[in-house]
Amino acid sequence: MAKTIIGVMGPGDGATKQDIKWATKLGRLIAEQGWVLLTGGRNVGVMDAASKGAHEAGGLTIGILPSEDGRDHSEHLDICIRTGIGSARNNINALSSDIIIACGTGIGTTSEIMLALKAKKPIILLHQTDNALAFISEMAPCKLNVVDTPEEAIYRTADIL
Amino acid sequence: MAKTIIGVMGPGDGATKQDIKWATKLGRLIAEQGWVLLTGGRNVGVMDAASKGAHEAGGLTIGILPSEDGRDHSEHLDICIRTGIGSARNNINALSSDIIIACGTGIGTTSEIMLALKAKKPIILLHQTDNALAFISEMAPCKLNVVDTPEEAIYRTADIL
Amino acid sequence: MAKTIIGVMGPGDGATKQDIKWATKLGRLIAEQGWVLLTGGRNVGVMDAASKGAHEAGGLTIGILPSEDGRDHSEHLDICIRTGIGSARNNINALSSDIIIACGTGIGTTSEIMLALKAKKPIILLHQTDNALAFISEMAPCKLNVVDTPEEAIYRTADIL
Amino acid sequence: MAKTIIGVMGPGDGATKQDIKWATKLGRLIAEQGWVLLTGGRNVGVMDAASKGAHEAGGLTIGILPSEDGRDHSEHLDICIRTGIGSARNNINALSSDIIIACGTGIGTTSEIMLALKAKKPIILLHQTDNALAFISEMAPCKLNVVDTPEEAIYRTADIL
Repeated sequence: MAKTIIGVMGPGDGATKQDIKWATKLGRLIAEQGWVLLTGGRNVGVMDAASKGAHEAGGLTIGILPSEDGRDHSEHLDICIRTGIGSARNNINALSSDIIIACGTGIGTTSEIMLALKAKKPIILLHQTDNALAFISEMAPCKLNVVDTPEEAIYRTADIL
Repeated sequence: MAKTIIGVMGPGDGATKQDIKWATKLGRLIAEQGWVLLTGGRNVGVMDAASKGAHEAGGLTIGILPSEDGRDHSEHLDICIRTGIGSARNNINALSSDIIIACGTGIGTTSEIMLALKAKKPIILLHQTDNALAFISEMAPCKLNVVDTPEEAIYRTADIL
Repeated sequence: MAKTIIGVMGPGDGATKQDIKWATKLGRLIAEQGWVLLTGGRNVGVMDAASKGAHEAGGLTIGILPSEDGRDHSEHLDICIRTGIGSARNNINALSSDIIIACGTGIGTTSEIMLALKAKKPIILLHQTDNALAFISEMAPCKLNVVDTPEEAIYRTADIL
Repeated sequence: MAKTIIGVMGPGDGATKQDIKWATKLGRLIAEQGWVLLTGGRNVGVMDAASKGAHEAGGLTIGILPSEDGRDHSEHLDICIRTGIGSARNNINALSSDIIIACGTGIGTTSEIMLALKAKKPIILLHQTDNALAFISEMAPCKLNVVDTPEEAIYRTADIL
């Protein structure tokens, strides 16, 4: 039976210190639960931090890379999926994750949240701006799980699975 | 030299009457300018209405369809591009349009706005909710063109081209 | 009702003089029939030659480009679809064409023939090598239309439509 | 550092008994080397058999599925990547594998071989028809590694890595 995959999405170059800190923690907690971590795979921001956290805790880390050749991939990935489809790979991130945790607010992250809503995936929101929360809530009032800490994100994830 | 392509994005099944009315008008005005209309191509909502408006005014209409076989395509399309890549085709909509006009607020539309911001495309926003405007402005304060009518959207488009 | 789209596929940089000559003629004949020409859109080989032939004869030409920004597009295109999905766009070429004409033998061309067979599209083969013909026939004995000239390709296309 | 990924490509429904037998063995040998197995992920033919062989030998198995929802996935997969891009995912198979082993001759398999040639990936050919070998050799005379047994495929793979 296939392993449970938890997607952690968040800003790349625009990630805040808090985004990075919590992404690292999310990665570690996901690994400790025995779940597989999936990210967008690049060596920046939330993608990189979550992969680092999971990898160092002994978890399995998968990156769905936009490029053909995997350039700029996080060094904390076990598995590099080189899609060659650019930002269209955001939809693969959404479809391949059993649950999406969005950590931080950003352009790519928002596209992934929207594609995940479209695919009717459970979404957990952590560390979003007020405007992001107000808008995303308007788009999907029933499906949202807003949490305040990485630990709470993991409890909620376990509940949903 | 390749023709100018204007993308009109907006809700499908969730489109409001006003979205539909304005999308139809946008289509007509785009055709009257001699521009090509590009939409997501399905036979619902803003996609269908804009295609109808442009087609009836003698314009050329292109639909970038999610399905492999083009099922559910608008009957007002001249050109059906059957991508077979589902919602990942939203990125093709963004990349292939010289300018994006978002007419109405929706999940798929928001993913297209985000992907267009990522691709640094000019975006014109028409008939968005207050929460949508507040959030999108936060994501891209410099690039936004917020307009109140289809006519204003066309003036702004002509200015940018 | 959507226009009839004829895809012309063939080698890019590796095209022979004969491939180029026949692709140009195919383009012209397709335009004269009132059909839309679809190619891979780049400014080399069969893609470029067919687009030139069709465009100069007043036809409508569409290019399904691999890149995000449309660089290297043929100057004979009316419509540039910038997919940003690299060689994965070969499947869009196959799916979006009502009939595929393969003009010349090449790596990308063969992938498109295979994807078109998978999608159960009618395929017309022109100017293939003996090994290509023997192999493709083995893969799809019933569906093949092997022709000797561009004119014959057009007659066969009209028959199938 | 990312793990080594070996792609095993081959017919689905059209697989022969010998294709299945050798795919199972390839899967087992790949797992025994500590490499990760990547396939097209469906529950038929070479994809399913290779995944079974690798999984039962304790290896890690990844499937790059064409569908959005992962329906028809092999039960021997550890990781389901649900791409939602149909046969366009064949290019992801080629790009994500460090080396491709083609086991058996088929339409989808040939598209993957061509896309792998395009991406300049090392390819190992096992159990191809004479026409396939003659044609593929013509397309890529320098890059081919033709082998007679699964064991030889693994030796060759180890040499190339």
